[in-house]
Amino acid sequence: MSNPSLLILPGDGIGPEVMAEVRKIIGWFGDKRGLNFDVSEDLVGGAAYDVHGVPLADETMAKAQEVDAVLLGAVGGPKYDDLDFSVKPERGLLRLRKEMDLFSNLRPAQCFDALADFSSLKKDIVAGLDIMIVRELTSGVYFGEPRGIFEEGNERVGINTQRYTESEIERVARSAFELAMRRSKKLCSMEKANVMESGILWREVVTRVAKDYPEVELSHMYADNGAMQLVRAPKQFDVILTDNLFGDILSDCAAMLTGSLGMLPSASLGAPMANGRPKALYEPVHGSAPDIAGQGKANPIACILSFAMALRYSFDQGAEADRLEAAVEQVLADGVRTADLLGEEGVTPVSTTEMGAAILAKL
Amino acid sequence: MSNPSLLILPGDGIGPEVMAEVRKIIGWFGDKRGLNFDVSEDLVGGAAYDVHGVPLADETMAKAQEVDAVLLGAVGGPKYDDLDFSVKPERGLLRLRKEMDLFSNLRPAQCFDALADFSSLKKDIVAGLDIMIVRELTSGVYFGEPRGIFEEGNERVGINTQRYTESEIERVARSAFELAMRRSKKLCSMEKANVMESGILWREVVTRVAKDYPEVELSHMYADNGAMQLVRAPKQFDVILTDNLFGDILSDCAAMLTGSLGMLPSASLGAPMANGRPKALYEPVHGSAPDIAGQGKANPIACILSFAMALRYSFDQGAEADRLEAAVEQVLADGVRTADLLGEEGVTPVSTTEMGAAILAKL
Ligand SMILES: CC(C)[C@H](C(=O)O)[C@@H](O)C(=O)O
Ligand SMILES: CC(C)[C@H](C(=O)O)[C@@H](O)C(=O)O
Repeated sequence: MSNPSLLILPGDGIGPEVMAEVRKIIGWFGDKRGLNFDVSEDLVGGAAYDVHGVPLADETMAKAQEVDAVLLGAVGGPKYDDLDFSVKPERGLLRLRKEMDLFSNLRPAQCFDALADFSSLKKDIVAGLDIMIVRELTSGVYFGEPRGIFEEGNERVGINTQRYTESEIERVARSAFELAMRRSKKLCSMEKANVMESGILWREVVTRVAKDYPEVELSHMYADNGAMQLVRAPKQFDVILTDNLFGDILSDCAAMLTGSLGMLPSASLGAPMANGRPKALYEPVHGSAPDIAGQGKANPIACILSFAMALRYSFDQGAEADRLEAAVEQVLADGVRTADLLGEEGVTPVSTTEMGAAILAKL
Repeated sequence: MSNPSLLILPGDGIGPEVMAEVRKIIGWFGDKRGLNFDVSEDLVGGAAYDVHGVPLADETMAKAQEVDAVLLGAVGGPKYDDLDFSVKPERGLLRLRKEMDLFSNLRPAQCFDALADFSSLKKDIVAGLDIMIVRELTSGVYFGEPRGIFEEGNERVGINTQRYTESEIERVARSAFELAMRRSKKLCSMEKANVMESGILWREVVTRVAKDYPEVELSHMYADNGAMQLVRAPKQFDVILTDNLFGDILSDCAAMLTGSLGMLPSASLGAPMANGRPKALYEPVHGSAPDIAGQGKANPIACILSFAMALRYSFDQGAEADRLEAAVEQVLADGVRTADLLGEEGVTPVSTTEMGAAILAKL
């Protein structure tokens, strides 16, 4: 049997730096654990625009459709701020999500013991926090039509459309219930059903899907209250299910609670392919951080943990994912810190490559 | 000259209890400061539904259009959860906002010194926090057409429309710049211009309006990053300008940072009337809190401070508003606490009426 295939898209800003460390980790799993991958690399975002004039070339899109998993670094940067909407770096990422039909975006918000002090929240509020946000990723206001800026009378109007079909809601709800079954069997769904009809349909479909998961305790919350409750008492949640736009905001809010933004991975999953593996893209939650790009300061952990998610969700290597995650936790417990994690007295930051090497050493 | 007129709509849940305390405060300003108001009272939300079968009767709407200011308590409760969307308690509030054309919603997120310990955030992150969120309140996805749940093929689809015209963006932007001029001259506008065309138009119009306020330092932020930055370092902000839906979520997030949710008022302002006063509705940020309704436990401060905002923004009585706000701060500094504010050792909570009386005594 041939090796599973990985397409690496380092992208912009700190993307290439953190991805270089991930490649070493991938190499280690080949050398030491017999887990070999066919790795190819390509361009996305501003890096693709610079070469192709578009943030994702058609050939890259075609490759992404064929591989077993895509690993992405980050996209965007001030250099591309004035580009037309249609060729902005973000469009490359959005095209991948849409054309691969990656409808279920898993965003763990986890507070690492060694880092609980970094949170802006009180330690007892966040220590041990471990939430999984399931965000719908291929529909809603991100992709709904009509959209654009139109003339109307003697002025312009900006229009976007929030749009969810029953089947779109149902499939992402199922993925959230499946996850809840493997965790603490508690699921909270968030929308604005008090204001938006799309939220009413969302709540109705989620409630219907719940019948197939009688063991899961389902609750519903308005998204504004959800934001409040995340800040007030985040540990009340286990799995949170929400739509594309609310998920964008609520998952960033939850990520920041942990104080571990440079540490948080994500998985975007679609339907199973012929080989049974889901279409999948893995990426860190942090952005391209143009202010520190190219300086060897970036924290590679979020990207490394995104590869751990790939081991778990694409390659059924849960034990190897645990191994990698444990190595990261040990390195943190040893007090190894990149510059984003400073704050303790007398700690000197390590570079991106030193952090990568420390994790390799623990493996 | 006749007295200025106030329409009081206590609404549901704890609304009537907290509003009863506000009426005493209003009475005090009449007796002691010669500020007399013609006060009338009417129904909104579930309370209106119970009597009229709609959450806001046409006669009440007509009254609201005529008075100098409306004071609202809160709407909603589990009793009304299964009502049809069109007659839910929230629709009463949304009708007031829309028909009075209250486009500029001011939501201060302020951390009271005496209460900084109540925040789930570390004290140094929130102590002294004083942000003003300006939320567009009459357009966007809350009111855009088409909307509804429609048949499509063999399933249903839920649709809402995010929609902003240039003039809608411009008028709320102006109100935010005016506020910024009276505060620290720093304004941050939040949208998702990287994903939504309506956000692109928003950013463009706000940038254009900024030319009329060269002293104001304007910045732009994506709303997801905005949520992060609010949690990470809220004191970086002074005035935040955002749309209806983002404002709903971000202002609740900001409110919760302060740990003072039972303390936060809001003002919703429209265009000037013939007498020069803006159309205006004032309401606490907290909801109807059905779990504690009718028990005399509710904190009346948010509603009392909403009246202080009315004194300032509708009646040009800034000094009297300061007086009322100072009385509230003193009562808090004295350690008087309603049940929502417990946490310190050995403090017994006071009731809603006791809190009202304590504030009256300070006046
Ligand atoms: C980069 C941007 C298009 C993207 C989004 O809005 O989805 C990002 O914020 C995210 O959350 O992955
Ligand atoms: C009650 C509800 C309709 C309302 C809103 O969504 O605007 C509330 O959450 C608010 O923020 O005032």
